[in-house]
Formats: sequence, C-alpha cells, structure tokens
Amino acid sequence: PGTRMNSGKLISVARGLAPADLILKNARMVNVFSGEIEQGNVAVCEGNIAGIGDYREAREIVDLDGKYLVPGFIDGHVHLESSMLSAPQYARAVVPRGTLSMVTDLHEIANVAGIEGLRYVLNSARKLPLDVFLMAPSCVPATHLETSGADLDAVALKQILRWKETIGLGEMMNFPGVLNRDDGVLSKLRLASGKPSDGHAPGLSGRELNAYVAAGIQSDHESTTLEEAKEKLRRGVYVMIREGSSEKNLEALLPIVTERTLPRCMLVVDDRTCVDLLKDGDLDAVVRKAVGLGLDPISAIQMVTLNPATYFGLEGLGAVAPGYRANLVVIDDLISFRISLVFHNGQMVARDGEPVFKVGSSASNSLGHTVSVKSLRLGALRFPSTDTNGVVEVPVIEIVPGQIVTRRRQEQLRIVNGDVLPEVSRDILKAAVIERHKATGNVGVGFVRGFGLKAGALASSVAHDSHNIVAVGADDSSILTAVAEIERLQGGLVAANGNRVIASLPLPVAGLLSERSMEETVSGLANVESAASGLGSRLDSPFSTLSFLALPVIPDLRITDLGLVDVNEFRLIS
Amino acid sequence: PGTRMNSGKLISVARGLAPADLILKNARMVNVFSGEIEQGNVAVCEGNIAGIGDYREAREIVDLDGKYLVPGFIDGHVHLESSMLSAPQYARAVVPRGTLSMVTDLHEIANVAGIEGLRYVLNSARKLPLDVFLMAPSCVPATHLETSGADLDAVALKQILRWKETIGLGEMMNFPGVLNRDDGVLSKLRLASGKPSDGHAPGLSGRELNAYVAAGIQSDHESTTLEEAKEKLRRGVYVMIREGSSEKNLEALLPIVTERTLPRCMLVVDDRTCVDLLKDGDLDAVVRKAVGLGLDPISAIQMVTLNPATYFGLEGLGAVAPGYRANLVVIDDLISFRISLVFHNGQMVARDGEPVFKVGSSASNSLGHTVSVKSLRLGALRFPSTDTNGVVEVPVIEIVPGQIVTRRRQEQLRIVNGDVLPEVSRDILKAAVIERHKATGNVGVGFVRGFGLKAGALASSVAHDSHNIVAVGADDSSILTAVAEIERLQGGLVAANGNRVIASLPLPVAGLLSERSMEETVSGLANVESAASGLGSRLDSPFSTLSFLALPVIPDLRITDLGLVDVNEFRLIS
Repeated sequence: PGTRMNSGKLISVARGLAPADLILKNARMVNVFSGEIEQGNVAVCEGNIAGIGDYREAREIVDLDGKYLVPGFIDGHVHLESSMLSAPQYARAVVPRGTLSMVTDLHEIANVAGIEGLRYVLNSARKLPLDVFLMAPSCVPATHLETSGADLDAVALKQILRWKETIGLGEMMNFPGVLNRDDGVLSKLRLASGKPSDGHAPGLSGRELNAYVAAGIQSDHESTTLEEAKEKLRRGVYVMIREGSSEKNLEALLPIVTERTLPRCMLVVDDRTCVDLLKDGDLDAVVRKAVGLGLDPISAIQMVTLNPATYFGLEGLGAVAPGYRANLVVIDDLISFRISLVFHNGQMVARDGEPVFKVGSSASNSLGHTVSVKSLRLGALRFPSTDTNGVVEVPVIEIVPGQIVTRRRQEQLRIVNGDVLPEVSRDILKAAVIERHKATGNVGVGFVRGFGLKAGALASSVAHDSHNIVAVGADDSSILTAVAEIERLQGGLVAANGNRVIASLPLPVAGLLSERSMEETVSGLANVESAASGLGSRLDSPFSTLSFLALPVIPDLRITDLGLVDVNEFRLIS
Repeated sequence: PGTRMNSGKLISVARGLAPADLILKNARMVNVFSGEIEQGNVAVCEGNIAGIGDYREAREIVDLDGKYLVPGFIDGHVHLESSMLSAPQYARAVVPRGTLSMVTDLHEIANVAGIEGLRYVLNSARKLPLDVFLMAPSCVPATHLETSGADLDAVALKQILRWKETIGLGEMMNFPGVLNRDDGVLSKLRLASGKPSDGHAPGLSGRELNAYVAAGIQSDHESTTLEEAKEKLRRGVYVMIREGSSEKNLEALLPIVTERTLPRCMLVVDDRTCVDLLKDGDLDAVVRKAVGLGLDPISAIQMVTLNPATYFGLEGLGAVAPGYRANLVVIDDLISFRISLVFHNGQMVARDGEPVFKVGSSASNSLGHTVSVKSLRLGALRFPSTDTNGVVEVPVIEIVPGQIVTRRRQEQLRIVNGDVLPEVSRDILKAAVIERHKATGNVGVGFVRGFGLKAGALASSVAHDSHNIVAVGADDSSILTAVAEIERLQGGLVAANGNRVIASLPLPVAGLLSERSMEETVSGLANVESAASGLGSRLDSPFSTLSFLALPVIPDLRITDLGLVDVNEFRLIS
C-alpha cells in the first residue's frame, strides 16, 4: 500500500514557507473524517497534499469556484476483465469518473494464464493514473468442478503475495473448502495472515458463517438481502455493497448503512461492462444512485474513499488531508455528481468526463494464443437419454433477471432418437461449455431458460471463472458455428445462426480482453448484442448473463465443461 | 500485531461439529460493529472465539445470566512507568479492570536505560494475561534541552522497529523538530512509514498542524480544548481523549464524539498512578465517567476496543466475533460497569475485581544502579543574581491544578547576598533538577508556585522524560537531603525537612519502578504523599505534578538539568 511521505519540501509548503506546486482554491471540501463540508484552499506539493487552509502561493492555481472537492474513488472489489478492456483503456473509462484506485484480484485472467496473466495486466497498468492493488487470487481454479487454464496453488500464492502490488488475499469463493477444512485452502488463508482476506459467501449464515469468518475472512460482497448483510456485519465482516452490470444489490442493501455501521460498509462494482462504464459510469454512478435512494452524499463518498482505504490499509489514500496523495475529484454538486476535474498525484488527468492523460501504445499481446479446442463433431452436443423417444424430466438453469444467482427448475423435455431436445417455444435452450485451454475435448451440456433466443446461438470465451467457451443456442449447429469462430478469433463473443456468423467481438488477450479502444470495444459489443436481440434475446446484457452461466460458486444450478453443477450441494449432477 | 488463526479445530467448533473448550452462555453481547446488544452464547476454542449463536457443547460452560459481554479493553496510549509498578504488578492492577492490551512506548525507562530498559519491561511482561504492544520511542531524549541516560537514534529505532512486539512509532513529542525538518526526526518517521506513528502536539493548529500531519503523524492525545481536537480530527488525526491522573481532558473533549466521528476517537489514560489504578480503576473508570457524562455506553466501549484495534492494526482484537481472540470482559450493567469476570485467550484471569492469575517471581533487577549524582555543595542550588541585595523579577512556573500544562508568571523575589530566595508565604518555592545519569554535576534551578509546601522538600527520580532528580522545596538544605536519599535508594520519592528524611518510596528499577507488590507500592506512595501534605502540600498528587515539572515538551515553562525552558519558544532561558 501507499505510505505517507515526509519530505522536507512538503513540510515547508505546509508551513507556508515555500510555494506549492498546485493550489485548488475556493473548494468545498468533503471531509470524510468529520462528515463536514469545509471551505478553503488545498495546497499540493510533489503529488501530495501539503495542507488545507489559507494557502495562496503556487506555480499553478485552479479556482474551483465553490465546487466540491472529494477524495479519489477507490473501488474495493472489481474485476477489470469484466470490462473486456485493456488496463490503459479501462483507465480511460474510469478515471474521468473519479476512480483512481482499484482493488482487483484478476482471477479471470489468472484462470486462463496464471501468473503470466497477472503480470501482463499489472505491467500494462504501470504509469497509468489509476493505482492497481492486487489481491492474490485464492481460487484458481474456482472449484474442482471445471477445467481451467492454470492452477495457482499455495506455492504460487506465496510468490504472488510477495509482489509490491499485492495487498491481500482475493475473494475466497471456495467457502465449502473453508468449511470442510481443505488443507490447500487453509494454507492460503494462513499465508495471507495479517493482510486483508476477502470473502465471497452468498447466503452463508449461522454456524457456517461463524466458521467461514473464524477462518480469517474479513469482507464479503455477495449479500443479496438486508438480513444477510446485517448478519455478516455483526460477525465482523466488512460489507461491500455491489452494484455491477449483472449483480445489483444496492437497493436491497442500502438500509444497512447507518451512521453507526457506515465505517464497515463500502460500495463496489465487482463486474461492470465497458458499455455501462461508458454510458452509466463507474463508482460515480453507484454513488449517484445511492444518493438518489436517500443516502447522505458524504456517507456515500466515504464508502468509496476512506472506508476501503481503511479496510485495505491503503495509507495516504481516501481523504483530503495533509500527507495524503493528491488524488482529488472535483464535482459540481452532491446530487448529479457530475465530475468536472480529476487529479491523480496532483496532475490533472480528466476534464469534463474526458481523459486528458496519454496512453502509450499497448504492450504486445503475449496472451494471444489461449484458445485450443479439440475438434467437435455435431453429435458432441447431444444430451443423451436412456430412452430413445418420449418425454423426460431434466434440470434446467433458470436465469433470474438482474441477478447472477440462478434457479434450478425441473422441466419436461422431448426425446428424439435418444437426444433430449431444447424447446424454443418454451424458451428452453441448449447450453454448452466446451473446454478451451488444453483441448481435452470436455463438453458439458444442459438446458437454460431466460435467454429468449428464437434461433441461432451465442457463444463466449468469457465464462467465469475458468473461461472455457460457454454457449447457448436453439440448435447444436448454430452453437458449433459460434464456437468455431471463437477458436478462429482466439477469443471473443459471437452470435451465429446455422452455419453463418452474424456478429463477433474479438477478445484476443487471453480470450478475455479486447486490444481495441474503449469506444471500439463498446461499439463491437453493441453490435454483437444487437445481433443477439435479432435472434430473439430478451436480456439486457445477454453475453454478461452468458458469462456467468458456468460459475459454479453462485447458486443454484450451473454448467461447466464437466457437466451440470448443483452449487448448493457443490457437486456435479450425474 | 496479532493475527487471526484458522485452525481446523476452530472451524469444526464453529460449525458445531466439535465441542468448544468454553462456552459463555446467556450473554448480552455488545456488538461494536453494529452498535447493538445481542443475546446468545459464545463458543471459545484454543483461546479464540469460534462463533456466536446457539452453541451448547463444551468442556466448560459459564452461565452469564444476562450479564454484558464486551471485548477486552485496549489502552491505546499509556506509559506503564507512571504506575511505578513492575509489569506483573501492573497486570495485577489493570487486568481485573478489563484492560487486556496496552500500547506503550516505554519512553520513560528508555530515557534511563535505552534498549536495555525496553527489553527489561517486555521480557518481564511475557506470560502475563496482558498483551504489550510497543511503539518504538521516537524522542529519547525528548529534547536537546536536557540530559538523559540514553539516546535512541535512527539506528537504534531501526532495530527496535524490527522486534515482534513493536507495532509503530511512539509519540513524536519533538514537533518543533518535525516543523523544522530535523534530519534525525524525519529519518525516524521514514523508518516507521507504513506503521502507525503517534503524535503529541499540544495546541498545534493551522499550517503548523498541517505540516506536522503531512510528515506522517496519525494520532494525538494532547488536545485540551474541543476546538483543538476538532481541528486535528478534521485533518485526519485520530483523537485520543486522555483521562490520566494529572491530565484530565475527558469532560472538555467528550462533545467531539458523535456517531459520525466515533471511529476516529479513542479513550486512553496516558499516565495513571498506582493509587488511581487501585482505587479508581483504569480504562473502566474512564468509560464509567464518560457514560456518566452522557456518552452512549456502546460508543464508550468501542472507543477502548474496536477503535484502537483498527488504528493500530491489531488484528483479532477489539470485538466479540468469530476468529477474534477470546479476550472478554463480563460486566454487570452498562452504568456501573462493575466487572465480574475477565477472560484472556479464553482463560479466566480475574473475578470480582481480583486477579486470579499467577505472577512468577520478579525478574532480577538488572536496572538497579542508575542513579549517579556528582556530590553537591549547599551553594549548588543558589539562584544567583547580578545584584547583591534587593528585588528582582524572575520567571516562575505556575502549576495548573488537574492539568500538566504550566503557566509562566513573572514574579518579584528578594535577593539576599546575590541569591534569589523562594518566598514560602506566597507559595513560591525553589525548584531544582539534578542530573543523575552521568554524574555531570548539571543542576537547573528556578521557582515554582502551586505546591503549597510550608517547609521541607520533595524530590523524585521520576521526572519526565529524562528522569533526572527533580525537587521542590522551601529551602536548599531540605532539597539536598531529599536528593541524597534518592541517590542512596538508587531511585525513589522522598519527603525531607532540613537534614531529616520524613518518608520515602524506593523505586530501584531504573529509578522509576518499584520492586514491591501493587498494594505495598500504593501504601508506600500514600505514606510519602501524606508526608508531603504534612509539609503543607495542597495538591492531590504532589509527586505526579512534580514529575512533570521537568518535561520540556508541554507548555509553558519547565525546568531541566540545563535550566529553565520556555517551551513555546523551545529554548533555554538564559
């Protein structure tokens, strides 16, 4: 984490004995320590805040004319990969929104490319006006119920925890492993002892919650009900209220925030698409929505500044105060939260929503060959039945709109020639996961309701957390066309119909990230989503929903390359 | 700092799959995260809390019958030496009061004996049910305006900061050194970068406060007015509200505590005498008083538990929660705060105010020969004047009852044979500081008002922070008698009259600590204080007040072995 500096020059500037590098004058400062708005000038020296008060001498003076000055936002739990943007393009998206620090575990890219994947992102984030703090990914692969491209065991974790960018242990999704005292899981928690260890425990309660917390877990971002969040908070867990693209918990959880509980609560985005980042915003959008729902604006700001800084031990971040980094956001008012200026280390990096920092040419893509699929015959996607013809009851994954949890439904489906068929008229589509890291030929097949496709198929190499190829479709042929196109592109999102590719968005970095600009990626995504709508999709973000279909740590029913997974029982359905 | 454990057994007990070592049942638990009172049972395993809820199987079950269960208290700023007790006797005094952790910088004993002094206390505190966390003393000696027994420079600090007991940098009393960018001072702050660095900045405000905080200071316990504390809190400084034996700031500062500011506020004792510990209490007394003054009891408890744990990064301390240490205090109600049971690491260590833990025989006193005074003639204590006879105006130290600040007064005194004389009828006594570490023969002489002695003298080898011998008296002869007795005892408090010693309390460990039991030390102190009263003293704790007379970091006027010190100008008065 950052540390406060104590250069002689900073002290001289603070005392008014030397001119500042920058003065922001006539500011209404949001004081997250006292909950007050203060008026005054802020003096900056060598990227740090020297003092607050009556400062007048500086190389540069910016008159804020009574606008509000707040600390740079800190996203306490976010997966950069969900934006499908490279780190520089991600910074272009979020920095003008006021986000200047992110805490991320990069477990998506780690599942594909292991340590090499982590280093690729961290290295490409250097020199950006966005501080990236790494939580060492604890669950790569997330479970034993899927095949990933890499495996980060305790030995690898030990190495990652030594990096200067690493501040703790990433979300422990394997809560059954904790509860069952899995040796590998407990070793990882032990390695991170003394550092923050993030949790991920949807629905955990009572004795099981006690056990999970006793093992050393300190935060959670998976509460979906107020009672769940309250119980976690009582047990000492920092509550991260998540408002992502597919997971929206703000409205349900906001009542937990009182002046008393405020220090234990944060706002995070977890997963946000590039479209949402561009059109709606990042943490600024969450803060705006929270205030719209009635939260005190200073509390909302504290939840994305001081609180994550305190929890993660990010010294010198999260407040406008002497010795703190000059990561500062100027906003017009505390209702619209329109951001007019952003400063990182005392340098202006965005103005009126536009980045004003340079992004160097992208690093060469060392993760450009990560999709390797064993060739599939048409029959590979059959869902075989013991009966030749007739009707059979099968488990179907039901999408819950606006949530990443799914429901398990039992549905009657027709059998034709020993193959259980999807039924488009009832919105029951074929779902498939095709292993793509090691060309094992593993294919998991099942059924899903909620996508609404009338024809064709959607496929994606973004498929949490192992990032095999996940597909849904009205027929097997369309699915195979989409999968083949993903292999040709070495990663991406594809819409296909029959043997024709309708639209695609290439994601050639680990099969997860675009190499193009934020604007091009957004437009490419819009294009492929539009193609999905053309095929009948009724979802807001069909590829985002698709990407969670294979995540066997979120209830109830999932599908991986090994088959259907009952998450509540944490096992494959035979 | 402590870390949370994650033993398999703890997890099993939490899940209810194995019996606990101890269950505290029918507790009203004070939840410092939510601000609520919860009812239930607490399961303990291997010294840690496994869970809270419906636990029933244990080797031992204690029925709390609806009494309140609160986390063990953490004293965030205390100088053990002010009690004049050895660490084991200190533990006997405070553990039954609920204090189970102390953060101390031991700078008193460090001023006498350096690193050896620190190790002596830390080693003697091992195996006690009181966790001692060391803040590396930053200011030994406190200033260049006095002579100490040891000097801890940056090299020594680097060594101390590596000890497992050390969690940060102790109070930076040399705020002028910070403001003037003293190299040694800034190096020490830099060494502690990333760890908490405590402040000590009475009255600092505005730009100077900015500069002090920008240098890396994170807390302060020296505010005496509400406005002072508010300004510090706004600048990001954790506010430690002090209620000691001689320094009582609770009543003035308590209004700073609101639900909003609560997380940034703590209650500490700083300096408490053994008499107060025995008769009034420790943090329990401060909490009781705060609640009596109108503070919400749960807030008061949070200020001596979760808040210091958060500030100092004491993982696993400060709350009743899974994975936290089973440092637990059972109190009858939230008004009297009568403590009926105390548990440390799940072991009962006190019952109904009495310690029930064993204290081994004291370590042999390796600090028994620290008083070395160059022999003094009667004339050594003269306050010479350029005039032979007449009247002269001299600066006089005025005691402020109940505070450790002093005032500087100019007073007319008589000169007889070139010697300025004290004037007992106006309560203007002679004050003297005699260097006692290196037998330099340094003697500082001045005058003080407020002790009220009608005859005789009081002397002490406890004299913050250099711990030379400080004395006040109606005449030089009495002072010399008292000083000689201190040298003979190798430390202590003495009351004398003429050439007769009236009473004494030996303090043979570094001239600061008693080797006797808490009860004997209290009675010895009462005896020597009673002798002081017999000589006319009107102060509640004359030896405590005496011990601060030589502390040149607290305004306004002080005296050291080098002479009178104007603290505001931070220089000797020629």
